[in-house]
Amino acid sequence: MTQTTPTTDSATPPVAALPVVLAALQDPVRLEMVRRLSNADGAVRCAALYDVINKSTATHHFKVLREAGVIERLVVDGQTQQRLRNADLDRALPGLLDSVVDAANRAVQD
Amino acid sequence: MTQTTPTTDSATPPVAALPVVLAALQDPVRLEMVRRLSNADGAVRCAALYDVINKSTATHHFKVLREAGVIERLVVDGQTQQRLRNADLDRALPGLLDSVVDAANRAVQD
Repeated sequence: MTQTTPTTDSATPPVAALPVVLAALQDPVRLEMVRRLSNADGAVRCAALYDVINKSTATHHFKVLREAGVIERLVVDGQTQQRLRNADLDRALPGLLDSVVDAANRAVQD
Repeated sequence: MTQTTPTTDSATPPVAALPVVLAALQDPVRLEMVRRLSNADGAVRCAALYDVINKSTATHHFKVLREAGVIERLVVDGQTQQRLRNADLDRALPGLLDSVVDAANRAVQD
């Protein structure tokens, strides 16, 4: 089977409980990853989601976000990308992601 | 001057930055304190805001919430109470507290 469409490379877990999601979002590096993903409105290659950290640190942060159910990993033409699970999050925790991203965007503009 | 109305016993700091507020809310004990305060819709005596922890642990958690700008401490007739800073929070981080408390209430009902 040829992969012409993006495929998630692992089973998608449910969105975690509220404290786990908040713990995932409270880290400034992860918050910035989520902000960029939300503003991009689609899958984004990993390296575009952080600036000053190294790749292994970024991998750790992606894992925390993924295990909380905030993002999912896709493989597109052999390239790993991340995507926000907006719909799943808004179903599990209505309004939370929007309010967090709005506040994060305002903080960047200040 | 006689104290016939509740008075805050220290200067009220500004609501902290988003990561600090999320870090304050992500702890299950503090999340439950905030949930009870929100549902009470007013000042609440400290002991009514937690169950299984001891007083010094509770004092630590109140301090974290207070320094994040989430709650304020009042003294009413010599008794210490806590109050949620709903209006300040909603001005600084619109929608965040509502979505967090709604999710926390749903989690308790499950």
